[in-house]
Amino acid sequence: MRNLLLTLRFHGAAFHGSAIQPNAPTVQGVLQPALERLAGEPLALKCCSRTDAGVHARVFCVSVRTACRIPCERMIPALNAALPEAMAVTACREAPEDFHARYSCKGKRYVYRIHNSAVRDPFLADRAWRISRPLNEERLNREASAFLGRHDFSSFCAAGGGVEDHVREMFTSRVYREGELVLFEIAGDGFLYHMVRIMVGTLLAVHDGKCPSVREVLAARDRSRAGSTAPAHGLCLEDVLY
Amino acid sequence: MRNLLLTLRFHGAAFHGSAIQPNAPTVQGVLQPALERLAGEPLALKCCSRTDAGVHARVFCVSVRTACRIPCERMIPALNAALPEAMAVTACREAPEDFHARYSCKGKRYVYRIHNSAVRDPFLADRAWRISRPLNEERLNREASAFLGRHDFSSFCAAGGGVEDHVREMFTSRVYREGELVLFEIAGDGFLYHMVRIMVGTLLAVHDGKCPSVREVLAARDRSRAGSTAPAHGLCLEDVLY
Repeated sequence: MRNLLLTLRFHGAAFHGSAIQPNAPTVQGVLQPALERLAGEPLALKCCSRTDAGVHARVFCVSVRTACRIPCERMIPALNAALPEAMAVTACREAPEDFHARYSCKGKRYVYRIHNSAVRDPFLADRAWRISRPLNEERLNREASAFLGRHDFSSFCAAGGGVEDHVREMFTSRVYREGELVLFEIAGDGFLYHMVRIMVGTLLAVHDGKCPSVREVLAARDRSRAGSTAPAHGLCLEDVLY
Repeated sequence: MRNLLLTLRFHGAAFHGSAIQPNAPTVQGVLQPALERLAGEPLALKCCSRTDAGVHARVFCVSVRTACRIPCERMIPALNAALPEAMAVTACREAPEDFHARYSCKGKRYVYRIHNSAVRDPFLADRAWRISRPLNEERLNREASAFLGRHDFSSFCAAGGGVEDHVREMFTSRVYREGELVLFEIAGDGFLYHMVRIMVGTLLAVHDGKCPSVREVLAARDRSRAGSTAPAHGLCLEDVLY
């Protein structure tokens, strides 16, 4: 038996999230049958995380134990020929026997893209949330720094995640501007259900004076004190750390 | 009467080119009725150029004479509310009475994007032509410099353009790499039918040893000596010079 680590890239608009669902195309729902046809056996895929419908990934990792003997370099084109245009396998390598895409994961890095413009851009509409009012990226960045370190993120967790422990550690949390794009980069050892999107909604609520501060929202440990959930299509999983 | 200069941006996949056509969405075919409803009168739009089906534009200019009195800054949101997501009006200003988006144009700048990778990228598939074999951008750039200056571009003109004079002057012609993207930037005082796409096809033919040199293809003044026509979705009109 081999343990393979596959790296994917996908455009979120084409998928109803990563986990298999009946009657809806999902990342695992598309990848698993393609991989099983190639391997000629039923497979149990392990995904690095559950992503919401519409969320993009430049890097998304899947591990799978298989008896299939196809060399890694031949797996990539064979899988890509079977997968839809909105998804690509970018790498495939042999992983240690005990490697697990989710449990071996040391952290993840996301970028949330805001297109800060009064006018839409047809080249950004599918990958950034457009906000017309002028945003002060320095003010947003000062607030974002409050996420750094180890905190109970209960205020930033939507109901339905099914996780008890809400303590996570953030390594990177910053907001910066690239022209009309305002980007929120966040890396941490784990993320709760809708966490990054609620962080973005809260940063904007503080920016607009509707919320006192990220620090106070964190301390409250109460979802109702945070901002709203920013739309999925601005979010992209950029990196998975092992 | 005012003479308005509108600046557009559009994603080429949504349009069958710029010129009005029956039974197909086109840039002018979508913009004209939106503008006429706003102005309350029939209008004659002048477009900076004819673009092929599938070609993108970051900047595309249209001039129109109208009795409509809506201020420019209110035209932009009113038009954008009526236009499809794949198109946006990014600017509107008063132009001199004799200004004509096509005849007043001093030049245009295009970028052709090649995604040089063995693996597709779902975020580039709609905006770059993927070529798997490794490309040498320095060799391409050396060949591209032969387009600079004043030449008869008959070898780079598809049949059906209906233009007699094939002499044009190129101000910029270079190939450079940004990671997996290989970009061909070309600016000149005018372009013939399919000209940039045949230039790209010819650069690749020379790169691959199927064509002697751009210089010889130019001298031949014969379309059959040039390379094939590169696909439309890699091409983007970046700037229009007045």
